[in-house]
Amino acid sequence: MPDQITSRKNEIIKQAARLCTSAEIRREHGLYLVEGARLCRDAAQSGVKIETLFYTAQAEEKYKEYIASAADSAQTVYEVAPHVAALLSETKTPQGVFCVCKMNRAVREVRTIPVGRHYLALENLQDPANLGAILRTAEALGIGGVILGGSCCDIYSPKALRASMGAVFRLPFFLAPDMLCAIKLLRDMNFACFAAVPDAAAQPVTAVNFHNHPTVLIVGNEGNGLAKETIQACSGRVTIPMLGRAESLNASASAAILMWEMMRAESGGVSVGN
Amino acid sequence: MPDQITSRKNEIIKQAARLCTSAEIRREHGLYLVEGARLCRDAAQSGVKIETLFYTAQAEEKYKEYIASAADSAQTVYEVAPHVAALLSETKTPQGVFCVCKMNRAVREVRTIPVGRHYLALENLQDPANLGAILRTAEALGIGGVILGGSCCDIYSPKALRASMGAVFRLPFFLAPDMLCAIKLLRDMNFACFAAVPDAAAQPVTAVNFHNHPTVLIVGNEGNGLAKETIQACSGRVTIPMLGRAESLNASASAAILMWEMMRAESGGVSVGN
Repeated sequence: MPDQITSRKNEIIKQAARLCTSAEIRREHGLYLVEGARLCRDAAQSGVKIETLFYTAQAEEKYKEYIASAADSAQTVYEVAPHVAALLSETKTPQGVFCVCKMNRAVREVRTIPVGRHYLALENLQDPANLGAILRTAEALGIGGVILGGSCCDIYSPKALRASMGAVFRLPFFLAPDMLCAIKLLRDMNFACFAAVPDAAAQPVTAVNFHNHPTVLIVGNEGNGLAKETIQACSGRVTIPMLGRAESLNASASAAILMWEMMRAESGGVSVGN
Repeated sequence: MPDQITSRKNEIIKQAARLCTSAEIRREHGLYLVEGARLCRDAAQSGVKIETLFYTAQAEEKYKEYIASAADSAQTVYEVAPHVAALLSETKTPQGVFCVCKMNRAVREVRTIPVGRHYLALENLQDPANLGAILRTAEALGIGGVILGGSCCDIYSPKALRASMGAVFRLPFFLAPDMLCAIKLLRDMNFACFAAVPDAAAQPVTAVNFHNHPTVLIVGNEGNGLAKETIQACSGRVTIPMLGRAESLNASASAAILMWEMMRAESGGVSVGN
């Protein structure tokens, strides 16, 4: 039987709850909080280091196998009362399963990116739900990894974790606080770097032959797109040719289409003559 | 100066708030509630009939032009106190602009679908945020319209309206409570009907020549996909060939890629040989 926590004033709970509040606190401690039975299980199965697992008695009945899998990898396990679990939850109807995970401190610099694959780079992406959704799609399509450029929102925020459906744990990501420097480096490493822009004068993404060359496709902020200097630093500009109301395409849908086009030839689009 | 509402017990407010609670109430009255300055303006600009516009004094300062545009089309306008506006809002920090709109009662049956264009059909889609996001992408890519098959979630729910960014007001949609019947009708109307399935044995969507034939692409429920009978009724099965973790692709991302492929040749993908 695990130890029980029944007080909302318990220091372990208070510390775990603080991890939801800001990226700074997460970075300072090198920890983040994961909510949800399936997501906790995914963290364990992906080899993430789990410091603490919390679950309610109700959750143990309902999510027995998920919890057992996460508990196997956890250093410490607590059963918590429902009113205590509520302090850790972002949702109105919490499942009652949470774990505190250690950030992967391995070097995540652009210069360590394995060559020979295609990557997506995001510049100043603001919405964690968009970030999570994009990671999820990138994983599905077999993208090599994602570069977080400029000041993107935190990949370890509860919203990004949830929207990623666990892709955060599995997909390699790299940090590029200085986008211009990163693009220079990537081009030196022989990547083609394309800036995605909503400009009908740019090259249609359908006209690029991604098959010949490892590529980094760079997508900008939801409201403002890419910085002018970032676009200038790239080897080319690509756009999604659209017949409809172009301003309607949101960040995660356009990233999905761009990544799809980048992977299309490799995924089986080669044989088609149109 | 518009009339003011300062009581939470005001009958007009109580009726408007009820429109958020269920699809049945919306259908019964033929009305729905729109929240947000931009979305109310979009409704007015899209020719939606606005029965009532509500806004707070604070909102009038901040969203003057949006409110003026919506007020021009509204039958009645009220200024409401902030604590009254809170009753109408789904968000924690409401903008304080709302309107009650009349549903378009024009015939939306499958037999009235204009031929000669490509359409997306959704079967039993459950998540209104997915539905809204898909409508938004469909509009951007220039899809002819969307068919809501089986028992999809309500297109007029606050979440669907918000995620659609106004596409609900502009994109034609059609109701097909009986999917099998609708597919038969669509095939009689000479549409090619393709079932989207997560099955590597199905035809890759990249291998279909959509350019030759008006097509309806049918996408299933988030958890369970398409009904077996629906798949059998179609002229073919298509799939998105993926190199990564296929289960990761969510409903709105896969719909985006499928719609993109359907429109690709027309949008400018014709010239590419890969």
